[in-house]
Formats: sequence, structure tokens, C-alpha cells
Amino acid sequence: MRIRVINPNTSASMTATIASSAEAAAAPDTVIEAVTPTMGPVSIEGHYDEALAVPGVLTEVARGVAEGADGFVLACFGDPGMDAAREIAAGRPVIGIAQAAMYVAALSARGFAVVTTLSRTAGRAWDLARAYGLGDRCKEVLACEVPVLAVDTAEDMVADLAREALTHDGVEAIVLGCAGMAEMAARVTAETGAPVIDGVGAGVGLVETMVRIGVGGCARGEYATPLPKTYTGLMEPFTVA
Amino acid sequence: MRIRVINPNTSASMTATIASSAEAAAAPDTVIEAVTPTMGPVSIEGHYDEALAVPGVLTEVARGVAEGADGFVLACFGDPGMDAAREIAAGRPVIGIAQAAMYVAALSARGFAVVTTLSRTAGRAWDLARAYGLGDRCKEVLACEVPVLAVDTAEDMVADLAREALTHDGVEAIVLGCAGMAEMAARVTAETGAPVIDGVGAGVGLVETMVRIGVGGCARGEYATPLPKTYTGLMEPFTVA
Amino acid sequence: MRIRVINPNTSASMTATIASSAEAAAAPDTVIEAVTPTMGPVSIEGHYDEALAVPGVLTEVARGVAEGADGFVLACFGDPGMDAAREIAAGRPVIGIAQAAMYVAALSARGFAVVTTLSRTAGRAWDLARAYGLGDRCKEVLACEVPVLAVDTAEDMVADLAREALTHDGVEAIVLGCAGMAEMAARVTAETGAPVIDGVGAGVGLVETMVRIGVGGCARGEYATPLPKTYTGLMEPFTVA
Amino acid sequence: MRIRVINPNTSASMTATIASSAEAAAAPDTVIEAVTPTMGPVSIEGHYDEALAVPGVLTEVARGVAEGADGFVLACFGDPGMDAAREIAAGRPVIGIAQAAMYVAALSARGFAVVTTLSRTAGRAWDLARAYGLGDRCKEVLACEVPVLAVDTAEDMVADLAREALTHDGVEAIVLGCAGMAEMAARVTAETGAPVIDGVGAGVGLVETMVRIGVGGCARGEYATPLPKTYTGLMEPFTVA
Amino acid sequence: MRIRVINPNTSASMTATIASSAEAAAAPDTVIEAVTPTMGPVSIEGHYDEALAVPGVLTEVARGVAEGADGFVLACFGDPGMDAAREIAAGRPVIGIAQAAMYVAALSARGFAVVTTLSRTAGRAWDLARAYGLGDRCKEVLACEVPVLAVDTAEDMVADLAREALTHDGVEAIVLGCAGMAEMAARVTAETGAPVIDGVGAGVGLVETMVRIGVGGCARGEYATPLPKTYTGLMEPFTVA
Amino acid sequence: MRIRVINPNTSASMTATIASSAEAAAAPDTVIEAVTPTMGPVSIEGHYDEALAVPGVLTEVARGVAEGADGFVLACFGDPGMDAAREIAAGRPVIGIAQAAMYVAALSARGFAVVTTLSRTAGRAWDLARAYGLGDRCKEVLACEVPVLAVDTAEDMVADLAREALTHDGVEAIVLGCAGMAEMAARVTAETGAPVIDGVGAGVGLVETMVRIGVGGCARGEYATPLPKTYTGLMEPFTVA
Repeated sequence: MRIRVINPNTSASMTATIASSAEAAAAPDTVIEAVTPTMGPVSIEGHYDEALAVPGVLTEVARGVAEGADGFVLACFGDPGMDAAREIAAGRPVIGIAQAAMYVAALSARGFAVVTTLSRTAGRAWDLARAYGLGDRCKEVLACEVPVLAVDTAEDMVADLAREALTHDGVEAIVLGCAGMAEMAARVTAETGAPVIDGVGAGVGLVETMVRIGVGGCARGEYATPLPKTYTGLMEPFTVA
Repeated sequence: MRIRVINPNTSASMTATIASSAEAAAAPDTVIEAVTPTMGPVSIEGHYDEALAVPGVLTEVARGVAEGADGFVLACFGDPGMDAAREIAAGRPVIGIAQAAMYVAALSARGFAVVTTLSRTAGRAWDLARAYGLGDRCKEVLACEVPVLAVDTAEDMVADLAREALTHDGVEAIVLGCAGMAEMAARVTAETGAPVIDGVGAGVGLVETMVRIGVGGCARGEYATPLPKTYTGLMEPFTVA
Repeated sequence: MRIRVINPNTSASMTATIASSAEAAAAPDTVIEAVTPTMGPVSIEGHYDEALAVPGVLTEVARGVAEGADGFVLACFGDPGMDAAREIAAGRPVIGIAQAAMYVAALSARGFAVVTTLSRTAGRAWDLARAYGLGDRCKEVLACEVPVLAVDTAEDMVADLAREALTHDGVEAIVLGCAGMAEMAARVTAETGAPVIDGVGAGVGLVETMVRIGVGGCARGEYATPLPKTYTGLMEPFTVA
Repeated sequence: MRIRVINPNTSASMTATIASSAEAAAAPDTVIEAVTPTMGPVSIEGHYDEALAVPGVLTEVARGVAEGADGFVLACFGDPGMDAAREIAAGRPVIGIAQAAMYVAALSARGFAVVTTLSRTAGRAWDLARAYGLGDRCKEVLACEVPVLAVDTAEDMVADLAREALTHDGVEAIVLGCAGMAEMAARVTAETGAPVIDGVGAGVGLVETMVRIGVGGCARGEYATPLPKTYTGLMEPFTVA
Repeated sequence: MRIRVINPNTSASMTATIASSAEAAAAPDTVIEAVTPTMGPVSIEGHYDEALAVPGVLTEVARGVAEGADGFVLACFGDPGMDAAREIAAGRPVIGIAQAAMYVAALSARGFAVVTTLSRTAGRAWDLARAYGLGDRCKEVLACEVPVLAVDTAEDMVADLAREALTHDGVEAIVLGCAGMAEMAARVTAETGAPVIDGVGAGVGLVETMVRIGVGGCARGEYATPLPKTYTGLMEPFTVA
Repeated sequence: MRIRVINPNTSASMTATIASSAEAAAAPDTVIEAVTPTMGPVSIEGHYDEALAVPGVLTEVARGVAEGADGFVLACFGDPGMDAAREIAAGRPVIGIAQAAMYVAALSARGFAVVTTLSRTAGRAWDLARAYGLGDRCKEVLACEVPVLAVDTAEDMVADLAREALTHDGVEAIVLGCAGMAEMAARVTAETGAPVIDGVGAGVGLVETMVRIGVGGCARGEYATPLPKTYTGLMEPFTVA
């Protein structure tokens, strides 16, 4: 099985981190193909960044379909472009790491906290938790206020926030709110003794599960292939023939 | 007061329809500036189209801010790019027509139905209704299955669906689910005797309200100006200095 | 357009404050008619007061309809008698300032706090937030514990509470929870830099919007004209012929 | 124990029906005092009627407190004036029959349907179901379209609607949506084999329960005694000294 | 009327406490039959204990039906085995003390806190509050961290926690979260001046209410008698003929 | 990795079906250990059956822990004993097939229907959907009315119900509501073209995912090891030393 793991930002260093976590999580018969888009922001730290990362994500999904990937992981905690990606994935699973991480958290413990980078992204985390049905189980979103591209230096702060969150009512697991934190899961688990969930690994496992049991992404109704349509200007390459 | 009404698709004919409805709804001291983006899809009929309309929308918001517009209406029922637009609107109101229409519906009646173009867009309508707090009041989403660019020919079908919806439990108002239906509101109101809400007019009124009472869009926290950041490839023009 | 703004309590001084805010918010072609009921409590500070303010409110709505008003604002944050008023408004819009303020808040920011007079009214504010679909977006209700008729002296306390609320997770806008606070919006906005919403102005704008786009209150089903019926005793004047 | 059962409308015939059901439900050591207000509508069939029944209800609650009643049942399915009544009940339980009937239904079965008089009252039933936490368990509200004062002639229609409702997914009990249907519970139970709940009996039992276990209505915070205040005009008798 | 009150654990001393509270709450014509199961854990302090208390509870329900009891109270705050008990109760009411206490709390005040024994049981309390529709009204669950069998020594701590909870926003009543606390209700009410609800008394009153008004447990559909079926091994005695 | 898949009923034929589906879903390095309890009902078709299946399930979990299993799948759609099992699983993942199937459905499509055996089990399916956060996404529960032990003969009916469900608004995937249907997923997928999810395979994949990424079940707080305690009577073997 070949799983394409798309880093929605354009920083190759973060793609490397993501690839490493994805490979550690993969089954022996799974090939991880981690890719960096050719267009978009160097990091995603707000709605503007996220919205404008989507064209790059969609380009990679289309390329992955053409090259025969079996499924996709969108490795940014805002799950950017997920619904649009499902329309062009031709029935292959497309999973965002926020949805993956939150469902694994809900399978592991009653309630969880998200530890994220900048507090300005907390609103998006809450929106996703509610959209995925877990608004009650997500107890809080804590930010370390370290930018995404420096988050690899923030491991101590992430561990501290996790420990703090676990003292609050109903918080029994931690969801890491940035793909750049993926490699911290093991250490924070060890330090806190609580389940700490990295969405990259969770997403890889969920795509594997869906492929093995023959459950694709829905490709009818809402998620049917986009209708043929002309795109103009900068967006002309996205025209659907 | 100058309100910039952005048609998120690139079809000038639809911009004309939208402009006409916006002007009819505006107060005497309001100037409507209806604009068509320079990039994007000719119509929006799914998640892919909507996601790729966002760069064009954001370009128009940035231009509107530079040119001194007082507020913005996003005239597509999916409210594409709204959160991102708020980040770059420098505290000016940015209102999507779905949110505007649904809130006016909730001020007018207990429950409402949305009449839309293609059924594949119903999922987005439901997502928005829930995100805006009106998942309980939105009773159903009915589609006439006419494409967006032909919706001006579907007035009879829209009226029929509205009449049908009004016979269902709890449906006491109709929300028109496409900016291309804006001019149908008066006729369908006349035929059904029920409130029929076009979001373009509702959005214009709500921006006027916010400007008059000095309530801008929030420009702190989540909606603060995007952080300086390099964008690459096709997205390079969106770099934040 | 003529908008009747009804102060549900019988204190003329508060009617003057309300009128002033309403006029400041109105479009140039709107006439504000602020009225004080001929019966009821001098202020509304609990469920008992509110319930017994309703006959006075309904009398003013009936008079407004007879005198040709185009729509109504109920200028008490409990939205007293709103459903009943809609039944007798003959299809004209009737908007309570709590509903108006909360919807404008939800158009401006993700989450809001209500700053109110006495804490005993907080339960009503929560009930309304939930009924209007914004139970998740209303993050807290803070009371300055100053009685309604003295609230004009509490501007510093209101500003302090607003500032405090804005430091809490998810609070990005302030809703003023009493019509008597209407004139404080500008100052508190200036001091906090956040959107501060007075429901009186918001309500005026929303009635204008509905009138301009031809969307009345629903006058069928639940909100149809009351059935002919005898009222006895003190309530005899409310008999429906 | 003396329980005052207040018929919120002014029709003595309905008070007699209510008294009969209340007495049938009462424990041997309970005295039922059924009363008719001296002011208000002859029946309650909409928001206007209900709002204007409240002054009469509050007058009876105040009288009941003065005369030493141990608790109150408000015997109209809209639970009119309940919050206000709690403020003046000096810590005695005040229970509306809608809340009582719905909680007993939820103790008896998974989901229920409400069978009511006129469909225009359905919105109120839904509002109450949601406010009491049972919006998910209330599956539908069916109306026989017989006016309240003729509902004693509608027993066959009520039974038919109950039978129909019980064929729908998730409906396993029936709540009678009008105090005038109180005496139909036994027959409809016999005919349908399902639990059929009359709120008058349920309310009496719940007041008894609260009195026996020493749980009053809350008389602090939100439900504290109304503040001293002048009432004017027709409402002058309600002045709080 | 004969009400069988089942202590789900096997400690006779707790049965005695429960019997005493039940008798104090009962009407003069009610006979309380408090019973201890012949199998199961000596106390219930977690999901494992609760799950394994169920066979003993079901044995007592079956015995009660055979011996002509009119209804059942399950006197452990986790309401163990309630759905299963309803299937074998042949239409007699079966009420758990958590559901009973929470509904009485919701009839008495806007919001409540649960004071329980060990914090590890809080998750169950939250699950039940949500399942019964009161997830919004249950504001917090506070634990005294005293084991169930020693809870009779914890009266001061329970009172302290109740007092603390009542200072929090929206908490206006206290629900005692363990049958072993039943006799503390009067004292804690006296000390706090707020409604304090013991579920044993509440459950007795609610069974009485249902029996008097002829509303049984639903015995159709979901709660119909279990299908004939062989049970093997240790569970062989539960075979349904 | 060794995953113990527990069939909660005592029918070895169903264990064989479950084992087959689990093996088909497993990664190459996973060993499936399917087991049948030594006590309990031959099938689970209601709350009584389910409650009394729990002791057998817990016995198998304890045995699996002792024998070094890495995680557990509870292969009955009611997820019987899941919370209790988590307490004794010493931090290993324990996943019920309802939770697994519903989360995979929510990763695949917007809304789903459950196709189950007997309609009397629908209530449990709804309870679980709500408890897992997917009450909005679960659109309906359809029953073929074939008993669990004959469900292997009902493939045509299951396929027909699936097809019917997929014509309803918002249903875009099918969840098989019984472990006995596990082998039907491929055929029903082929016939309907929609995602059809068997929880056994989904559960195996999710346990694999959690084990690979080092996320166990939470073993603190609510899910800590049961406290030492005596069990009596038939339940004596469950005593916690």
C-alpha cells in the first residue's frame, strides 16, 4: 500500500519531520510518500495561510491520484482543503491529521486537550472538534506561542502544557496540534504517563485501516468528481476538463 | 458608506444580478461596489470550486481595503474564504450571504428551509447552518438540480420547492441558497406568503448595520492580520510582507 | 421607514437613552419612534418584572401597528414578549435587542461575553443565547451588580468587566446586556479595541434590513394573528375581537 | 400536604377537569386546591394568550403562598410564567405540566411524541422540550386541530394521533399536550398499550416528591424574591413593596 | 403500593441507609422493600464494579416482579443495569437514582453540581447527565475522595464541597452522587440554604407518581421482554425460557 | 502484534465469522486471536443480553492481558462492557466495533445509516452514536428483523436496506450493525458503490494504529485499575485482590 502524506506548507524541513513520523507508524507493507507542495505558504498559522495552502494541497492530491497512491494524509492540524480533496481523490481515503488524532483520542480516553503552536489557531481547532462531533470531549486548546517553523525547539513547553492540561477536569489525553510536533509524542507520553496523540501517525494508521477493509472515501453525492468548469487567471491550471 | 460586494465566481453576468439585488437593498447613503475576481472558477458548485475561489476572493478583499471600502459582502452561499477574509479586512465587517440570510431567517420565523441549486452543495449548507448555531432551525435543504449559471431559468422550480418546503413541519421561511437567485425573493414571497430571504440583500443590510453602530470585524486574536510570510509558486503574489 | 422602538419598562429617562442610541444608528431615511408603555414595572431585573412588562409591550406593539409603524425593536435585553408581539405585528418585523446584539456579535467575532446589570438576570441571558443558537459562542455573562436605573453611573465598571472578559479564552467581542448601557458602546470599544455591541443600534439596523429587503415577520402558523377570545378581569382590555 | 393546582386560563370547566385528574393522582395525605385566575384569557392557544395569562397565574401563586400552600402546579402545557412564579413562591416548588410530563416520559421510555390541540402551539412545545433538555427525546408534536375549549370532544382524534405516532421511529410514549386532555390518559393507554402521560397528574406527583424530600424551589440568585419596585397603570397591583 | 428499592452493592449497612431514606420519602400508603443482592461487589466505585453489579440487580428485579412489587428504584448513582432491568420489569417503572435526582434538580433550579465519592466516578456522572438531557445543567462534578463504604464519615466534606460549588456560576442546587449520602440531604440543605437532592427519596417519589398515574415503564419495542435464549457457564441462571 | 478479538456472545460459529473478517483486515505482522467467552448468552439482542454478556467479556479481557495481548476488539455492535474492560486492560487499547465503525464512517462520508438485526437494538445504536459524538451524522438505524444467529442468511435484506438508506437525505455510507454481518461488507459495497463499514475490520485497524503509535488506553483517573474489593455469590470470581 502506498500512502501519500502531504505537508500542506512548503517547508521541506517540516516534510522531513512528518515523513519520519509517518514511517514510524506505518505497517511493514506500507510505503510512505511524503511530499511538499510546489506552491503556498512556508507555514500555516491562521485562516489566510490555510486557505492559500489549499491549491498546493489539491495539486498534490491530483498528482497522487495520477501516480496511483492508495490514500492521503493531510499533515496540517487545520485539515486544509479536506472536503475539496475528497472530491478529486476518486474514492481513495483522504484524512486530515486533526480528525485522525481526535478520533484516536476519543478511543483512548474520555476527554482530551489540544496543545498547539499559536493561540490564534485555537479557533480552527475548536471548529474542527465540533465538526467532527467531539466538541464535548475537547476540553481545552492550549498554545505554546511558538511559531510553527520553530516548534521543534518547543518540546519542553509542549510537555509542560500537556502536564498542566492533565491536571484539569476531564483531560485524560493530549492531542498534539501541529504536524511539527509529531516526533514529540513518545517523549511527552513517557513524561506524563497519559496517551499523547500525534495526528500524522494516527492518520497513516487510519488510511491503512480503510484501505485494508475496502472502505474508500465516498465518491458520490457531495464528494463526486468536480463538474467540468473553466478556471481563469492565476487559477487557470485548476480547470476541470 | 461604500460596501464592496464580491461575487466569488468569475462570471460577470452573475455579478450583475448580485449588484442589482444589493443596490435594491441598500440605504440611500450607501454605495454598492460589486466586483468580479480576476481568477477562479466560472461558478461554484462543490468544495473544489469553492476552495479555489478563495484566492480570488482574498485578492478582492485586499483591493477593497486598499481602496477604502467600509465593509464586504461575500456573495456566494458557501461563504468562501470568510475567516481568511476577516484576517485581512483590517477590522472592517466581512459577511457571507449564508450567515446573513440564516440570521435574518431566524429573526423572522422559527424554522426555515434552504432552496439551493445542486444537491451536492447541501452538505456545505448544513455545515454552515451548524457552525452559525442554526442547525436546529434549518429544517431541510432542497435542490432544484439546475446548475448555478442557469439558475436564472429555474424560478418556477425554486418557487415550487419553496411551496413544498412550507408544507413541512417547522418550515416557516425560505432561504435562497444561491446568489444567482437573489432577484427571485420578491416573486417567491408574493407567491408563498412566507418570508423569503436573499442573502445578498441581507448581507448588505448587516454590513450597513455594523458600520453605523461602529462594530467592525474583530481584528485581534484569531482574526489579527496574517503574520509576515513567504508564499511560493503560483501563490507567490499572496506573500505577506 | 418608521421604526417603533419600545422601552419595555416605564422609566422615561431610559426611553430617552434608548431613543438617542436608536437615532444614532438609523439610516437617513429612517424615523425612530421611541415609546414608553403606560403600564408595567419601572425597571426589569428578573423574571417577575419581565413577565409583567409584557402587557405594556404588547399594548405598544398593537398601537404601533395601528399607527403604521414598519417594524419594532423591543429594547430590553430579555426580549420580553417577543413571540407574543410577533403574533400581533401583522407581519412586521419584531426584534429583541438580545437577539439582535448576539447575531451581530456572531458576525463580528468567534465568541462573546455579555456584560449585564444584576447577576440574577444571567440565567435569562443564557436561555436566550441557547434559544437563538449561540449557546456555544456566548462564553460568559458578567454582572456589574448595579441596578438598571443606575446603570448610567456604571460605565467604568462595565468597561472594566469588558476588559476582563476579553482576557478569557474565546471572548473576542462584548455584548452590552442592558438597553441602559446603549450609549457606552463607543467608549468601551475605544478603550478595549474590541467590538462592543449595543443591541438597540443592532436592532434598528436589523429592522431596517428586513424592511428594505421585504422580509417581514412570519405571519402564518405559529405567528398567525391570535384567535378571537375573551379576556377577563384586569386583562379584559386584551380581548381579541 | 396542600398543593395548589393553577389553571392558567379563566374557564372554570377546565379547572374542574384539571382538579379531577389532580385528585386522582394525589397521595392520600395530599389536598388538591384547584383554582381559576380572576383575570386572563378563557383559553391559551398561542404566545399572546400565554403571555397574558401570566398576570393571573402570578396572582394565584402569591395568594397560594399567603394561604400556606406547599407547592404549585401550573396546569397549562406552555408552563406559562414558571420562572416568574418561582421568584415569588418563597422556595416552594412550582412545576409546569409540560416539564413534569416530559420528565416522566423520559423515565418511562426512550422517545416520546406530544399530542396537542392546535398546530400553532407546536413551536412552544419544541421550545420547552429543548429548554428542559429533551429536544432529542421529543420526536414529534402532532396536533388534532381542535380548540382547547372543545378538546374534551376530541378523545378519538387524540387516540388516533397517539396510535399513529407510536408507529414512528423512536416514539414509545405519548405526552398529552393540553391540560384539557388530562382525563384521556387512561383510555389512550388502554387502547395503545403504551405509556400515555398527563402532565397534571405528573406535576402533582412531582410536587409531592419534592415536598416529602424537603427540596424546595431554589430561592437564591436567579429565583430570589423580586426586588422592591413600582408598577404603574394596569399593572399597579403587582408593585413589590 | 410496594416499591422495591434495590441496593446494587452487597453491603447490608448501605441497604439500611438507603431503606431509611426511602421510608422517610414515601407516602403513607407506600411500602418500601429495600433489598441487597446475593451477588456482586461490596461497593461500586468504577465501571468494572458497576458492570458486575448488574447480574445481582437483575436478579432482584426479577424476584421483585415475581413477588408483585409495583416499581423499582436502583439505588446506586450510576443507575447500573437500568435498560436491562426495564426489559424484565414487565412494564413496571424502574428508576435509577441519578436520573431521579437530576430531574428533580432541574425542576428546582437552573443548574446543579454533583458531589460524589471518588473522582474516578465523575465520568459516569457526566455520561448520565448527557444521556438524560441535562449535560448543560450539570455544571460540575466534585469528589470528596472518600470511598463509598466510608462515605457516612464524610458529611463535613460533602457539606464543604456543596458550599464551594454553590459559589460557582450557575450552580444553584446540589445533587448527592452516592446512595450512601442519602441521609445527608437535610443537613446540607440546612447549612447551605440551597436545594440538596438525594436520589433515593427522589426515586421513590417518582415511582409513586408513575404508579399513581398509571404510567408504567415502556414494555414494547426496545424494552420488550428479552427473547428466549440460552445462557451458559456462570451466567446459566439467567437463561430466558 | 497480537490482537485479541472477543466475540461477546457464546456462539462459536459467530466467533469464526468474526475471526475471518479480522484476519482479512489485519496487517501482515498482526496475529488475530479470536475468542469465545465461557459464560453468557448465545446471542445479544437487547439490553438484558448485553448486560449479561459483560462478565464473559471481562473474563476474556483479563485473560488476554495475562497472556500478553497487545489490544482488544469487542466484536458486538453494542460495545458491551467497554468502559469496564478499559479499567482492567492495563493501558492496552480496547475498542468496540460500533465506535470503530462509526469513526471510520465519519472519515469516509458526511452521514451514515446503520443497518442492524432487530429493531429493538436501535435504541442502543443511537445511544452509542450520541455518546461517540456522531448523533448528527447517524441519520437512521434500519433493522432487517432477522435474529443475530440467522443473520448470515439475511445478506439480500441487508443489501436492500443499504440501497434504500442511500436514497435518503444525507446518507452516504453504511455501517453494518452486527458482527455477524462482517463478511457482507465487500458484497454490499460492490452492489451499492458506497462505503460499507464492518466494525470488526475497522476495530482491528484502529487497535493496530494505536499500538503502532504508542497510544494506549488511558489508565489513569476514570480508567485506572479497579480498586481491591470483595465480590460475593455468583460474582465471587471477579473479586479484585
